Amino acid sequence: MKIGYVQSHPIFGDKESNFKEIGKLIAGKKMDLMVLPELFSTGYAFISKEEAETLAEEKNGPTAEFLQEVAKKINGMVVGGFAEKSGSKLYNSAMMVKEEGVLSVYRKIHLYYKEKLWFQPGNLPLRVVEGNGIKIGMMICFDWIFPETMRTLSLLGADVIAHPANLVLPYCQKAMTTRCLENRVHAITANRIGLEKRGDDQFLFTGKSQITSIDGSILSSAPENEVHVDIVEINVKKARNKKLNEFNDLFKDRRPEFYKF
Amino acid sequence: MKIGYVQSHPIFGDKESNFKEIGKLIAGKKMDLMVLPELFSTGYAFISKEEAETLAEEKNGPTAEFLQEVAKKINGMVVGGFAEKSGSKLYNSAMMVKEEGVLSVYRKIHLYYKEKLWFQPGNLPLRVVEGNGIKIGMMICFDWIFPETMRTLSLLGADVIAHPANLVLPYCQKAMTTRCLENRVHAITANRIGLEKRGDDQFLFTGKSQITSIDGSILSSAPENEVHVDIVEINVKKARNKKLNEFNDLFKDRRPEFYKF
Repeated sequence: MKIGYVQSHPIFGDKESNFKEIGKLIAGKKMDLMVLPELFSTGYAFISKEEAETLAEEKNGPTAEFLQEVAKKINGMVVGGFAEKSGSKLYNSAMMVKEEGVLSVYRKIHLYYKEKLWFQPGNLPLRVVEGNGIKIGMMICFDWIFPETMRTLSLLGADVIAHPANLVLPYCQKAMTTRCLENRVHAITANRIGLEKRGDDQFLFTGKSQITSIDGSILSSAPENEVHVDIVEINVKKARNKKLNEFNDLFKDRRPEFYKF
Repeated sequence: MKIGYVQSHPIFGDKESNFKEIGKLIAGKKMDLMVLPELFSTGYAFISKEEAETLAEEKNGPTAEFLQEVAKKINGMVVGGFAEKSGSKLYNSAMMVKEEGVLSVYRKIHLYYKEKLWFQPGNLPLRVVEGNGIKIGMMICFDWIFPETMRTLSLLGADVIAHPANLVLPYCQKAMTTRCLENRVHAITANRIGLEKRGDDQFLFTGKSQITSIDGSILSSAPENEVHVDIVEINVKKARNKKLNEFNDLFKDRRPEFYKF
């Protein structure tokens, strides 16, 4: 299986230009699963709920249409973040899309910082969806810091965690080596680059998108401040064997009767 | 508060010599909490249950007596690993001891490799015990790879995780930066050094004992192949505030209704 990511440089509020940039970056690339950053079509740093609402879309809006085109071009599935409008509510969401349409939507359950002012916390269960023979679980950015997110997706059978991100803190990439090792899953963290200075806030996005393997090894690491595309070949089925050695299986050895939640 | 560790080089089966080594290493050291390695008095690589039984002790045996002396000398509490005998059953345990006696015993709930052949999996709940104003949670070595262990101890209110270890894999120290960050707790990983070649197995213990802070920063890191003692000053109360910024509290932001166990 070929899995990859695009590390892009979204311009705030300019969907057309953000779609074009991605179109150029993926020209000629083929893969089974590609991940794009969180909120890749709108940019990140909203300054009011009204502004977020203006840029938000229903799940079958222009971003979904664009991702269907992308899926066709790469001949695979694509996961990307978007500002979702559902009735009067907004969510920081990601969708999994193939050429024929949207397969699944995930709404970020752990909101970061001022996202709480415009988005509702996700209200849908964490899910694993199979496509092209890969069992895919979606999470978004800050979800990484809660070990329960990837644990849940892994217990549900994920082979690969698709992880759109807009990272500003320096911890996630290292942590993903632990997350993948403890769950024996693959992960694709697609981050963005660039600076957004809006209102009182300034966000410098830190690049270094990363594909991490089931033993915590790093299969791809993007530069810190350049756009980048990478594709790696993995055997997704390796994630279905949780044995570390002949005595230890990381899932069978769990002792939930002693765990507090 | 002063917290520290001893990274020792146990000789298999020779308790007297192992006690002496520790006695020398701590001479003149004072601290509130000190952690010693897993199975520091017996060594690690048993080749049969009978052999483990010969070296195992009830919780008030010679290792407990030795640790009471140590507690008196350092003027603080001490946590160390021991092979525990309880009726006909053996456990890979750790005890928390002060001058007056044993405060608490923890039995490793996730056994590694052939430990499963001689030890029973721990049958006691994970607990946090307060002593000298520090709320301490114990876990042993391989427990680290299960995020639920430190999560549970942290949710129970631990300020410091006392983590006796006999590490042979290269992953734990890096992972502890993520574990401490995700839970905003301190941890003391006391590892051992040396090679044990017994039966068909050979274990090279990898040193690098580590004290990790609530933001994942490393406050102390021991050498790979020398005995070592270190003490650092921390403010344990910092672990009681789980806020990352004005919008995010790592415990209040959890969404257990979406987590699978």
